[in-house]
Amino acid sequence: MNPKPNIVDLPVYKPGKPIEEVKKELGLSDVIKLASNENPYGAAPSAKAAIVAELDNLYLYPDGSAAELTAALAEHLGVASDNIIFGCGSDEIIALIARAFFLPGDETIMADQTFSVYKSNADIEGAVSIEVPLKNGTHDLDAMLAKITDRTKAIWICNPNNPTGTIVPEDALITFLDAVPAGVMVVLDEAYFEYVTDLSYSNGIKLLDTYPNLVVLRTFSKIYGLAALRIGYGVASPQIISLINKVREPFNTTRLAQVGALAALADQEYVQQCRTLNSAGIVQLQAEFQRLGLESFPAHGNFIMVDVRKPAFEVFDALLRQGLIVRAGHHRYPTYIRVTVGSAEQNTAFIAALEQALQEQGVRA
Amino acid sequence: MNPKPNIVDLPVYKPGKPIEEVKKELGLSDVIKLASNENPYGAAPSAKAAIVAELDNLYLYPDGSAAELTAALAEHLGVASDNIIFGCGSDEIIALIARAFFLPGDETIMADQTFSVYKSNADIEGAVSIEVPLKNGTHDLDAMLAKITDRTKAIWICNPNNPTGTIVPEDALITFLDAVPAGVMVVLDEAYFEYVTDLSYSNGIKLLDTYPNLVVLRTFSKIYGLAALRIGYGVASPQIISLINKVREPFNTTRLAQVGALAALADQEYVQQCRTLNSAGIVQLQAEFQRLGLESFPAHGNFIMVDVRKPAFEVFDALLRQGLIVRAGHHRYPTYIRVTVGSAEQNTAFIAALEQALQEQGVRA
Repeated sequence: MNPKPNIVDLPVYKPGKPIEEVKKELGLSDVIKLASNENPYGAAPSAKAAIVAELDNLYLYPDGSAAELTAALAEHLGVASDNIIFGCGSDEIIALIARAFFLPGDETIMADQTFSVYKSNADIEGAVSIEVPLKNGTHDLDAMLAKITDRTKAIWICNPNNPTGTIVPEDALITFLDAVPAGVMVVLDEAYFEYVTDLSYSNGIKLLDTYPNLVVLRTFSKIYGLAALRIGYGVASPQIISLINKVREPFNTTRLAQVGALAALADQEYVQQCRTLNSAGIVQLQAEFQRLGLESFPAHGNFIMVDVRKPAFEVFDALLRQGLIVRAGHHRYPTYIRVTVGSAEQNTAFIAALEQALQEQGVRA
Repeated sequence: MNPKPNIVDLPVYKPGKPIEEVKKELGLSDVIKLASNENPYGAAPSAKAAIVAELDNLYLYPDGSAAELTAALAEHLGVASDNIIFGCGSDEIIALIARAFFLPGDETIMADQTFSVYKSNADIEGAVSIEVPLKNGTHDLDAMLAKITDRTKAIWICNPNNPTGTIVPEDALITFLDAVPAGVMVVLDEAYFEYVTDLSYSNGIKLLDTYPNLVVLRTFSKIYGLAALRIGYGVASPQIISLINKVREPFNTTRLAQVGALAALADQEYVQQCRTLNSAGIVQLQAEFQRLGLESFPAHGNFIMVDVRKPAFEVFDALLRQGLIVRAGHHRYPTYIRVTVGSAEQNTAFIAALEQALQEQGVRA
């Protein structure tokens, strides 16, 4: 039973440590997880109510085409239903794009520190990932353009970029899109779109008409607070959506995810509240980082990447012992941690723990 | 943007018509769906309660390794945790096997009328599906053995077979497994395992120690009544599970599916009730088919395939007009419909509608 040779040495994704596991390992009763960019305010109450109302239908398969949710989202976004495909998180859309389009030897261009799922799926298909160094934590679009060859199948732009949190401004993005050959797909991953308040930021959906090679990814896992339900989506031309659909499993999202997302989508007031609270949280954390003399990348999502000026894993461990879970292990930025913007209380607790951790490590500013 | 050439002409899976759609199209208020082999008694009440208890965690990612559910299932099955992988339905395990193991030109052997997802995933990977004719609606294991070549990567045995409902008896399965070369994977799809009461039937899990090339698939979508939640699993050697895990998306099952399945698994009394009711339903339907002079395949799952001796689509349409949704369109059996075993009341309604449909069609026995 020989597997595909290119998958044998693939690593298995390491998610953030679950809260329960940390409590057990360290004997802590209170643990705050700021590691997975989850919404600290939870899901909209209406999403929970919609799920409760659906519980008598657990025995029924979902609508494989998610027709009702698709129609509502199409109206919300100002696109047609056949511009949309749902997946088990936008992760799955990434996997489906790779599965539908990538042949062994194809090339795909991405930043050298970005969402890891682009590369892992390219690896599975035997495609070659060309990793272009970030410049000041931001996508270097000119350098990415320079890497395009006849074998280039797709370019991944994570905007805001995970883990750095930086954005590509609209004018630079348009210049870039104008230069990309029509036969090269550009995937614009806007998982954190709804958090961004910066006026220079683009709305990828509005660029779809002009750039038929564009695919925009978004999700209900972040500001909508439905990470548990695994539902994200891709928006693109009907031609691209139809091709991705050919490799989609027939029932790839759950009935509860569909009703939950439908209710959450309808509650834009709640989304606005979460955005406002997140912006305040960014200001709070950045002020504290400044006080501590720590530099961080401009943050546009619900997370901040900050330079702790010590091996990140050591600070990670020191935080963990105090019941704070963050993210370390970014190969390009070995002295940075990524912290999710929590509630004001969580942020305060994080900063106190960070000060303690830095004192332990002797890095007090 | 050129896709993989082998996916361009792939058909998109056609699921059974949703109840709401049929009601709307035909102006009916009562519609009975016996098309997707769902459990007519629904999910166990404990599964619903477990989901309600989890609603405050919607904003949190699931445990990607489904550790708690895996441990409980391992104990239930008498295997170790590293023998198990969960998927978005057992459908996803099929896709992951193809994605991890199939190279273009590899061969994979299956029945000519079986679960369509085996072939669709082979197609996506560019593998060649060798379809072996069923014999009396049953897998022809000798003919399948005869098709093994140096390029054979996997053989799919759906047991009970969907759509015919027939089983391969244990002695024949063992003779077959003894003859399959060690380098060829055998995937035993036991999605309907818990329904089978026939004493000649095997438990694939018990064969895993003897046949390390064996993968067993099961699901919470059928007797457990959790089709809405999309959760199934594969059981195999740690080596095979580890390879499949390399192509699994990190968070491929939802938090609600994990807690729902955990509760449903614990309620084996409910499973036993559903099995007993299903067996009674098979007896009820078979007696009616006999009365009507209609032949059906021996049924071991929660569905029966019956020869209506007219083009199946005509009978399908006649049933649909009466608010009964069944399955037609089985290329090998153009005069057969597949009907899910419903509750006693649903079965009675189905038989009445079938008699009416056959009279309309002039096929009264």
